[in-house]
Amino acid sequence: MAEGKAAHGWAARDASGHLSPFNFSRRVPRDGDVTIKVLFCGLCYTDLHVIKNEWGNAMYPLVPGHEIVGVVTGVGPGVTKFKAGDTVGVGYFVDSCRSCESCGKGYESYCPQLVQTSNGVDLLDGATTQGGFSDVLVVSQHYVVRVPESLPPDGAAPLLCAGITVFSPMVQYGLNAPGKHLGVVGLGGLGHLGVKFGKAFGMTVTVISTSPSKREEALDRLGADAFLVSSDPEQIKAAASTMDGIIDTVSAEHPVAALLELLKPMGQMVVVGLPAKPLEVPAFSLVGGGKRVAGSGGGGIGECQAMLDFAAEHRIAADVEVVGMDYVNTAIQRLERNDVRYRFVVDVAGSKLGGAA
Amino acid sequence: MAEGKAAHGWAARDASGHLSPFNFSRRVPRDGDVTIKVLFCGLCYTDLHVIKNEWGNAMYPLVPGHEIVGVVTGVGPGVTKFKAGDTVGVGYFVDSCRSCESCGKGYESYCPQLVQTSNGVDLLDGATTQGGFSDVLVVSQHYVVRVPESLPPDGAAPLLCAGITVFSPMVQYGLNAPGKHLGVVGLGGLGHLGVKFGKAFGMTVTVISTSPSKREEALDRLGADAFLVSSDPEQIKAAASTMDGIIDTVSAEHPVAALLELLKPMGQMVVVGLPAKPLEVPAFSLVGGGKRVAGSGGGGIGECQAMLDFAAEHRIAADVEVVGMDYVNTAIQRLERNDVRYRFVVDVAGSKLGGAA
Repeated sequence: MAEGKAAHGWAARDASGHLSPFNFSRRVPRDGDVTIKVLFCGLCYTDLHVIKNEWGNAMYPLVPGHEIVGVVTGVGPGVTKFKAGDTVGVGYFVDSCRSCESCGKGYESYCPQLVQTSNGVDLLDGATTQGGFSDVLVVSQHYVVRVPESLPPDGAAPLLCAGITVFSPMVQYGLNAPGKHLGVVGLGGLGHLGVKFGKAFGMTVTVISTSPSKREEALDRLGADAFLVSSDPEQIKAAASTMDGIIDTVSAEHPVAALLELLKPMGQMVVVGLPAKPLEVPAFSLVGGGKRVAGSGGGGIGECQAMLDFAAEHRIAADVEVVGMDYVNTAIQRLERNDVRYRFVVDVAGSKLGGAA
Repeated sequence: MAEGKAAHGWAARDASGHLSPFNFSRRVPRDGDVTIKVLFCGLCYTDLHVIKNEWGNAMYPLVPGHEIVGVVTGVGPGVTKFKAGDTVGVGYFVDSCRSCESCGKGYESYCPQLVQTSNGVDLLDGATTQGGFSDVLVVSQHYVVRVPESLPPDGAAPLLCAGITVFSPMVQYGLNAPGKHLGVVGLGGLGHLGVKFGKAFGMTVTVISTSPSKREEALDRLGADAFLVSSDPEQIKAAASTMDGIIDTVSAEHPVAALLELLKPMGQMVVVGLPAKPLEVPAFSLVGGGKRVAGSGGGGIGECQAMLDFAAEHRIAADVEVVGMDYVNTAIQRLERNDVRYRFVVDVAGSKLGGAA
């Protein structure tokens, strides 16, 4: 069997949450495959869950990373979308069945056979997929998007997961209309992009947080219109029934009944965080005002391209702290205590990668 | 001050859940008011909550009843929609602000100033509204709908609340399309109408119930296509990811996580019951498949008219047990133990009403 391109990355070997250098091979390019030199890769909270095997599905050694910006270095036969030299992005999945209802509608992220970029299983050869904390990637062109030149490649990387995760439901649920009022719960990697997209859509944006200390950054740094402390019943009461929609990005346990109060009748809340315990949703809060709670995970490839084009037009990128791969273990620890404004991005191309030959 | 028309009904005097004869006056008709002789009035579970003051807002004496079919006996100046002799219906509200976003969109039931038909407060004079368990009603024409002649007036009465409560979200969320798969949870007053509307829309309808004993009536009597016992994990697993939508009519505490499993990706669950304890909604169940949970309460006047016209066209009426007013206290007790297939309707016009002069 032909050997694919040598790849050098950093991998988790066990559930300790620690990454270390790792050499492996990428697959031999198939028809339609694009070979990508990775430039930058964001560190998403999901990476932490996976490498620590918190969801019980880790396959070690495991190269995380699914917020990838790189440059096309080679295209195989059948590649029509890209050419060498193109700046491209890859998000949290690299394949899907291409025939189910979700794939047909362009919502590939809900395909039951979705192949995740990292810790996934290839549909054709059953190999474990390895993520973007590595120098090279081989991906079908259908799961690659174009990164507009005007976007900074480091600040663009988190758009591939955090960005599309907030953008997709905003568009899907009509929370992208000038004059509408959007609440963004939580001011992390996802939340800060929710604020930026909301403002770019011409909306009134209120940040809702447990930390009064985030008021200044929400209003001054990110340009939100208002700030609410979610634990203050007086503030919630004063803002009751004023919001058309809420994007809830919080993965820690938190009460949602108060958030539902903030919605107008028929308002839409979208959950993109993943608290371990079930959300407690009072039926009265939903029924009385015809209110709605939806979950949303990622987005489709077409949506992702639209998001990047919109981001370029409105000069939206993530606020990032760029680090070398040798800092990634520290970054993991800092991310665990939310000590980052707002996303770590590893300068993969600028880092020493891989283990001893 | 002019006295309105004498009215004779049955009212709750306290939280015992017992009704007894009661004489009172209807308001002096205003411009645009319709005077209605009540023929039939359904007994809804909400009536029980209200008369027993379970929601803490009962104003005694309290005439319940908000599933009303009657005949117009008089119209005041300004009435353009109706004339004497018309068969009409009144649902669970009789006024709203007419200027808010919800009213403007035809979703009057979400108006914050909604005036309920029974135990509500009139917007103009502050009087307590009294419901349909009485011989006469005076209502603004805007909150009255036409009951098509082909509908039986007794079986039509529950359409005014139970019917519109399931019909409105079905239309709103696209759960009215031939070939789609609808789950109906709970087979009571609301659920049995959900099945009928679903079949009339050309959908595949599966009834989901805790009681295996309801299989036969679901399939044979109501024409559902399938039946699932919600407490059987094997049955749930076999039907996982098959439903486009679910209407959950259950007001008792029940697990919703298993119901969410039944939904296809991006499927829509609609809660129309009112369990006292919050629904426990796992974020993973929502986010993974982009699934949606909405509440829905009643419907707008335009929707209600459309529902009645649809019901007439498809010969849909509630399955009812018609009783005299002297049986209402027994009916209340039987409804409390779900001992009715599927709705009690009081033959108001055929009953002795009111107390001693």
